[in-house]
Amino acid sequence: MPDVIAVGSIGLDTIKTPFGSVKDEFSGTAVFFSVASSLFSQTGIVSIAGTDIQKKHFSFLNKRGICTKGIQVVKGKTLRFSCYYEYDMNEAHVLKTDVNVFGKFNPVLPEEYRKARHFFIGAVNPKIQTKVINQLEDPEFVVMDTKPFWIEKSRKTILDTAKKSNLLLINEWEARQLFGTPNLQKAAKEALKLGPEYVIIKKGEHGSLLFTDGAYFSAPSYPLETLIDPTGAGDSYAGALMGWLAKSRTVTESKLRKAMIYGAVVASFTAEGFGLSRLKSITLKDIERRYQEIKKITCF
Amino acid sequence: MPDVIAVGSIGLDTIKTPFGSVKDEFSGTAVFFSVASSLFSQTGIVSIAGTDIQKKHFSFLNKRGICTKGIQVVKGKTLRFSCYYEYDMNEAHVLKTDVNVFGKFNPVLPEEYRKARHFFIGAVNPKIQTKVINQLEDPEFVVMDTKPFWIEKSRKTILDTAKKSNLLLINEWEARQLFGTPNLQKAAKEALKLGPEYVIIKKGEHGSLLFTDGAYFSAPSYPLETLIDPTGAGDSYAGALMGWLAKSRTVTESKLRKAMIYGAVVASFTAEGFGLSRLKSITLKDIERRYQEIKKITCF
Repeated sequence: MPDVIAVGSIGLDTIKTPFGSVKDEFSGTAVFFSVASSLFSQTGIVSIAGTDIQKKHFSFLNKRGICTKGIQVVKGKTLRFSCYYEYDMNEAHVLKTDVNVFGKFNPVLPEEYRKARHFFIGAVNPKIQTKVINQLEDPEFVVMDTKPFWIEKSRKTILDTAKKSNLLLINEWEARQLFGTPNLQKAAKEALKLGPEYVIIKKGEHGSLLFTDGAYFSAPSYPLETLIDPTGAGDSYAGALMGWLAKSRTVTESKLRKAMIYGAVVASFTAEGFGLSRLKSITLKDIERRYQEIKKITCF
Repeated sequence: MPDVIAVGSIGLDTIKTPFGSVKDEFSGTAVFFSVASSLFSQTGIVSIAGTDIQKKHFSFLNKRGICTKGIQVVKGKTLRFSCYYEYDMNEAHVLKTDVNVFGKFNPVLPEEYRKARHFFIGAVNPKIQTKVINQLEDPEFVVMDTKPFWIEKSRKTILDTAKKSNLLLINEWEARQLFGTPNLQKAAKEALKLGPEYVIIKKGEHGSLLFTDGAYFSAPSYPLETLIDPTGAGDSYAGALMGWLAKSRTVTESKLRKAMIYGAVVASFTAEGFGLSRLKSITLKDIERRYQEIKKITCF
């Protein structure tokens, strides 16, 4: 039975960066998350795909021990997303999003998933996020993400849903937008008031920040000289963080700090190649090496 | 005799932020730098001001042990700068810059200054920076800054001058602009190839990065919830860094790491008030407290 359940999109992405391009590449939040998480813990996916999804995609996940029982395959096309990056890869320029069958995503968790310990609920419609949370039996740790589209559309529902999560995991722009302040410290304070014990704000190349009552942690990113395609870096950060946490059993602030560094390390590998190309080939030894490097670059 | 010499502007700033405004406030690179540096080491200023500069400005500096012998006062008006910040204070919106007498800045260092050990050469015309460096007798540590205006106008001269410095201290946008790459790792590598042993890239609220041959350090910023006016934060970062380094005698990579944290701490105080208002009232005890806090927020 999987320890970590990821609820989120499966997609076929078309990406162009100054270093090349890929077409209909197997991706999406649940895919990047689970590939990263499965490096540490048994992971299951809750998602939806169209009949154009291929057998090789499922067997790729299954070979990594990822449970695909929670993926509904329905008539129609899988979510398709295309974007390009200019030389400064901090911003994705979206060309097109065809939600396709993902528009019908209405997750019903398999019975055994409901008993899992750790849940990642990706940036889907907050109403669906609430529905998922209501299906959980006795979760130890629920992590919730969101995105600008939903903040604009359903801010109130997001804030309500956040109350039911243990960790709100968002990026810096989402934090500013969601809490109406440019100051991340203030935004995080507001977020903690809602109910979650922890807030993590991802800042891409600038690292990530952890906030909890009375404590604060600033994690750097891994210094990358070769950045090929940042797509999926944020989701694989979340996956590694949660996979490592689930493996280490109890969640504490001190363990979350370490988990964030594992997140940064795995995200750095993701960005070194297109799609999953680099991520799928790394070993725990590769990860450990970069983890130790980050230890050195933060020491004073 | 001062241990640290700061070459840069003296100005009278008019600043507006969502939290208030000040008019003709005593400021400029050399002022913020020296007030911060004087917390740790004897500091002297090389600059130019007009006859509208007031006695109280000099006595303020002198009371802090800052040597003003290197400040030329000439007929005319002092540099005047005005800008405003919107609620997101990451960007200063410049309204007006009247260089006034600063346009005639042609520094001739007092004899005793030339024998000092540590020099900070602010973001002035790179030709003037070279002239200053040529006046130094046996400097131990020369730090050079620059700004977008000069990168656009005199890129080649900046690169030539950087060769003669020990540390290039610039912000992230300047690094990207100067070395024509969005990747800070690559930019720093190019900078090191020029000759300086160290490169520090300041990233404001995201901290700062140190690069040297074979080593790398990522320093966080101090988490500020009350940001009133960021003017001078970068210059006081440089001042604290160099003042602390000069006090600790020899410059090593390990000491630079600590110096960067002192820089971050002092910059955080600067941004908590308009102009010098907060910076001028802090004690070494206040600084040490935040230094220890940063130790805690980076530990994993």
